[in-house]
Amino acid sequence: MCLLFDSKKMPVNKEQLEEIEALRSEISETARVTAPELEAVLYKPIEVLDHGFIRVIDYMGDDSSIVQSARVSYGKGTKKISNDKGLIKYLMRHRHSTPFEMCEIKFHIKLPIFIARQWIRHRTANVNEYSARYSILDKEFYIPSAENLAAQSAINNQGRGDALSDDEASNVIQILKKDAEQTYSNYETLLNESSEGNIIDESKSGIARELARMNLTLNTYTQWYWKIDLNNLLHFLALRADDHAQYEIRVYADAMLDIVKKWVPLTYEAFEDYRIGGTELSAKEVNLMRKLLKGEKVSFKEEGLSKREWSELQRKFEIS
Amino acid sequence: MCLLFDSKKMPVNKEQLEEIEALRSEISETARVTAPELEAVLYKPIEVLDHGFIRVIDYMGDDSSIVQSARVSYGKGTKKISNDKGLIKYLMRHRHSTPFEMCEIKFHIKLPIFIARQWIRHRTANVNEYSARYSILDKEFYIPSAENLAAQSAINNQGRGDALSDDEASNVIQILKKDAEQTYSNYETLLNESSEGNIIDESKSGIARELARMNLTLNTYTQWYWKIDLNNLLHFLALRADDHAQYEIRVYADAMLDIVKKWVPLTYEAFEDYRIGGTELSAKEVNLMRKLLKGEKVSFKEEGLSKREWSELQRKFEIS
Amino acid sequence: MCLLFDSKKMPVNKEQLEEIEALRSEISETARVTAPELEAVLYKPIEVLDHGFIRVIDYMGDDSSIVQSARVSYGKGTKKISNDKGLIKYLMRHRHSTPFEMCEIKFHIKLPIFIARQWIRHRTANVNEYSARYSILDKEFYIPSAENLAAQSAINNQGRGDALSDDEASNVIQILKKDAEQTYSNYETLLNESSEGNIIDESKSGIARELARMNLTLNTYTQWYWKIDLNNLLHFLALRADDHAQYEIRVYADAMLDIVKKWVPLTYEAFEDYRIGGTELSAKEVNLMRKLLKGEKVSFKEEGLSKREWSELQRKFEIS
Amino acid sequence: MCLLFDSKKMPVNKEQLEEIEALRSEISETARVTAPELEAVLYKPIEVLDHGFIRVIDYMGDDSSIVQSARVSYGKGTKKISNDKGLIKYLMRHRHSTPFEMCEIKFHIKLPIFIARQWIRHRTANVNEYSARYSILDKEFYIPSAENLAAQSAINNQGRGDALSDDEASNVIQILKKDAEQTYSNYETLLNESSEGNIIDESKSGIARELARMNLTLNTYTQWYWKIDLNNLLHFLALRADDHAQYEIRVYADAMLDIVKKWVPLTYEAFEDYRIGGTELSAKEVNLMRKLLKGEKVSFKEEGLSKREWSELQRKFEIS
Repeated sequence: MCLLFDSKKMPVNKEQLEEIEALRSEISETARVTAPELEAVLYKPIEVLDHGFIRVIDYMGDDSSIVQSARVSYGKGTKKISNDKGLIKYLMRHRHSTPFEMCEIKFHIKLPIFIARQWIRHRTANVNEYSARYSILDKEFYIPSAENLAAQSAINNQGRGDALSDDEASNVIQILKKDAEQTYSNYETLLNESSEGNIIDESKSGIARELARMNLTLNTYTQWYWKIDLNNLLHFLALRADDHAQYEIRVYADAMLDIVKKWVPLTYEAFEDYRIGGTELSAKEVNLMRKLLKGEKVSFKEEGLSKREWSELQRKFEIS
Repeated sequence: MCLLFDSKKMPVNKEQLEEIEALRSEISETARVTAPELEAVLYKPIEVLDHGFIRVIDYMGDDSSIVQSARVSYGKGTKKISNDKGLIKYLMRHRHSTPFEMCEIKFHIKLPIFIARQWIRHRTANVNEYSARYSILDKEFYIPSAENLAAQSAINNQGRGDALSDDEASNVIQILKKDAEQTYSNYETLLNESSEGNIIDESKSGIARELARMNLTLNTYTQWYWKIDLNNLLHFLALRADDHAQYEIRVYADAMLDIVKKWVPLTYEAFEDYRIGGTELSAKEVNLMRKLLKGEKVSFKEEGLSKREWSELQRKFEIS
Repeated sequence: MCLLFDSKKMPVNKEQLEEIEALRSEISETARVTAPELEAVLYKPIEVLDHGFIRVIDYMGDDSSIVQSARVSYGKGTKKISNDKGLIKYLMRHRHSTPFEMCEIKFHIKLPIFIARQWIRHRTANVNEYSARYSILDKEFYIPSAENLAAQSAINNQGRGDALSDDEASNVIQILKKDAEQTYSNYETLLNESSEGNIIDESKSGIARELARMNLTLNTYTQWYWKIDLNNLLHFLALRADDHAQYEIRVYADAMLDIVKKWVPLTYEAFEDYRIGGTELSAKEVNLMRKLLKGEKVSFKEEGLSKREWSELQRKFEIS
Repeated sequence: MCLLFDSKKMPVNKEQLEEIEALRSEISETARVTAPELEAVLYKPIEVLDHGFIRVIDYMGDDSSIVQSARVSYGKGTKKISNDKGLIKYLMRHRHSTPFEMCEIKFHIKLPIFIARQWIRHRTANVNEYSARYSILDKEFYIPSAENLAAQSAINNQGRGDALSDDEASNVIQILKKDAEQTYSNYETLLNESSEGNIIDESKSGIARELARMNLTLNTYTQWYWKIDLNNLLHFLALRADDHAQYEIRVYADAMLDIVKKWVPLTYEAFEDYRIGGTELSAKEVNLMRKLLKGEKVSFKEEGLSKREWSELQRKFEIS
């Protein structure tokens, strides 16, 4: 996941790169708080998957904005916690979420449609998506690399299991490519217009864009502006940077985690400790742990845990 | 758009129909308000498009719930308006929207994915969609009927223009069918599992469902439970039952309008008058209208209207 | 917290009680799912504080609605979990929150204004509040009982500490009563209208209700209809039924917990185990626990915990 | 409504003014878009009412951000509208609201509690309010000026009518002052702590802040950080800068309108034309207008309008 300026493969075209450079060179003065590390990557696309990217277009606030809001809310209660780092840890730990809502960020993201469908289920963001009702989608599809192809997990209905053999993987890739290309080619036929804007057959009228798009496959790329506050972004990342998230959305979440680190480093640190690396225990699990810590013998069944809960607990706390 | 029980084409299968009949026959007593006309269609699927449907699974409140909430809010202010109909008209007219939020409805909807993508942009609903990450999608695609195929509008970038010739229409339908069938067949190959659940090739592992789905076309059907309050539903319907909405979502909105009429007839009537049939005028248009009503000569340019605004105004008010 | 029909103190008046009995006796047939235990208390006010109450006006769905939505979403993935109880536990544990959004409930609540101000910060509900702009507020104030009066906590900026002496408590109650009565009496003077609706002084005009209300104290009672989905309600209850919540809101949350138990007993049970009785650990705390479980010596400082975190951990897991 | 730096009456104290000057002098470089006119007033408090203020703390985006998002959404559809001004007018007219969500603003506001209660009903903002559970509220109350005192409207249950006589007004002001001062003084007694932080009576413990606050009147000032996107802000302003809004909230809305004008001048202009100065007509009103424009005789009763609707229509369009 590198910046793409010296990249052969170009998820953004030359015109866009020039526009980005132009935007980056227009420096203004502001009395607002700024996040210098984030400024350093502003507008720059970060490559994700084979044709996707994510880039920061705008942002508002930094770690100090969170502290400022917390101090107005909790007043004297926050004076005891003298430094910003301690206060942000305290807020994160106790899920005092409203101060984190005071920061906002706006991304420009290019992603496959089947991932966009998962993504949009997070309803607390503002979105402007490229509309295939108004415009013609580009000829770009997500084709997984061989190492990211895996069989359905035998134990987990929502996940992947073993990697594919080289032969099967290459066969899969071939099918995906062929179908995407054929349906896209027929998309142009249905529109009676090539993706370059030329009419294909003067004797035909073609069908409306809002209809023709239905022939595209779900790995076609789309793009959108996506704006969200920091609190909701962290909630998104807790779910989507998780091991259980689908690989194709996790890579976007990982890129965003990196951005969060540049933007609000103190918040990032607290988030790593209390969310990403943290865990939740049920009342029954707390009870069982108490006994374990006292050196008592425990039976997960008697404590009311399922076998699955018990084995997850063992793994998490390295209980033999 | 009829109830489908005597239909040859079956968007719901026999097992589902039996389940529906079973649910409909389980009558309970309740002290809650009920909407008898809505009860009469509860659970029953209403056909939409070629394989889609919409059905009401649950609801809460009726016209009287709106009145009840308005009277608590506006207190004495509502006593002057003695009857429920008058009060609901008053609320609708003045966009006092919170009392309409006190009614809730839950639908089960089957719809093509490219329409689901449009639909989900309304963020104020609760949604549980059938997950192609966990389960295999059925072999069902939306194929438009010939009379619903139309060229891109020459004057409107988001709409349809003239109908297609019979020849071109039949060609379009053939392409859509062929591509959907081929990509679905390859979806099964990628899964190494037929839609009936049989392994295709014992020597292969297939890829995970979360990956294989990317090969499907956007006219594949999905389904979801969709729950929304009446205020947000009316907002959805004002946009989606409108002439400018895409035909394939408008037919769902029309079916829902029918349901709203059965559920909250007084609200429906007010909605028809103040929203569906109503219009908005800008300050400049109000000014121009004043002059017209006084018999003065007007020039739309001098009044600051664009040519398009003026011709729309002429059409709306039948000004020659 | 009992039903109030044989109560001397009447938070609802005779007219309202008759209306409630009338509503309760209007039984309809419905094909919707019903929650019999909830039906048994529908419309009935449950007393909270000295003049407050909470009552259920309407509801939609039950435990089976959650299961139904989860099965559509997770498809085959949920078939392994054969029974409803297990599935609901699974959803609660993994914070799969959307199925819980499929149930909705509507309350009528009477509460002091300073508690209403805390309550309304939960933005995910629909609200219709009695408007003091349109109507005159009743002469009812919250006066805490002596045992609920406590000093500011010395260790916690947001809580209460030791109880007051009898003398000081009685003095406090006297001040609260006197000020509330005087400001209410002046509210009537400002309105030039008694709470019974009589003009006080024919020579005066009085001021508008929207202005006069500013003279009332924050313990004056208000009331509202409050409608929320089960997922957001549980989030509210996790915060407000907690020990750290202010007593005057906790008693409402406790009453609602009781209602949730009647409404969705399986969800209630899972909620008790995974939320109310559960806990969260940070990455550092998980690490420390691993060492403890292995019998290693630990220093909370070396593990990066604050003194407070360590003492809370000790208390929670009974670590000596 | 002027900037307050040379003001005798100081809604912000000296310490705060120094902090503001310090913030304003910390100028950073940024590659983000900036709104120079808004930068000129950043952090500066604008006086509202007798002790209130509103000031901009942070913002994100400008008119060009709206255009940028619209162009990604509507693609080719927006190319016909060549200039930004025309595109923003088009978006406002057709209620394409999502591009306006791409701008965000954060205010610091000081306002009386009874106005804060109205304000908070707009649920689509992020809020951090000064907590009287943690901290002691300042001794500041809203006392209306004599010219803003008015009787209850005889025709409108939510509004004000004639102004008060000088005598009655002076009496009203006296009551409001006396009650606010007495309840505040008793607030200190209840806390056993003066607003300066001194213990009043060493032999007493006082009650917790979360309890003592209930003795304050609703005209006591509170303050909060309030962050909202431009689309929701415009919705707020359309309601609260309206003639029907209560004077005490309208003055805040007016101050914000001024800020919007500095921030996004093109959007402001379109908002003035299509919202503030615009109007809505029902289907029946459209029908009646058509007849009027054709010179036909009309009877409002036959057209289905109420007497009130007809008189409002006459006034709006200057129909005699």
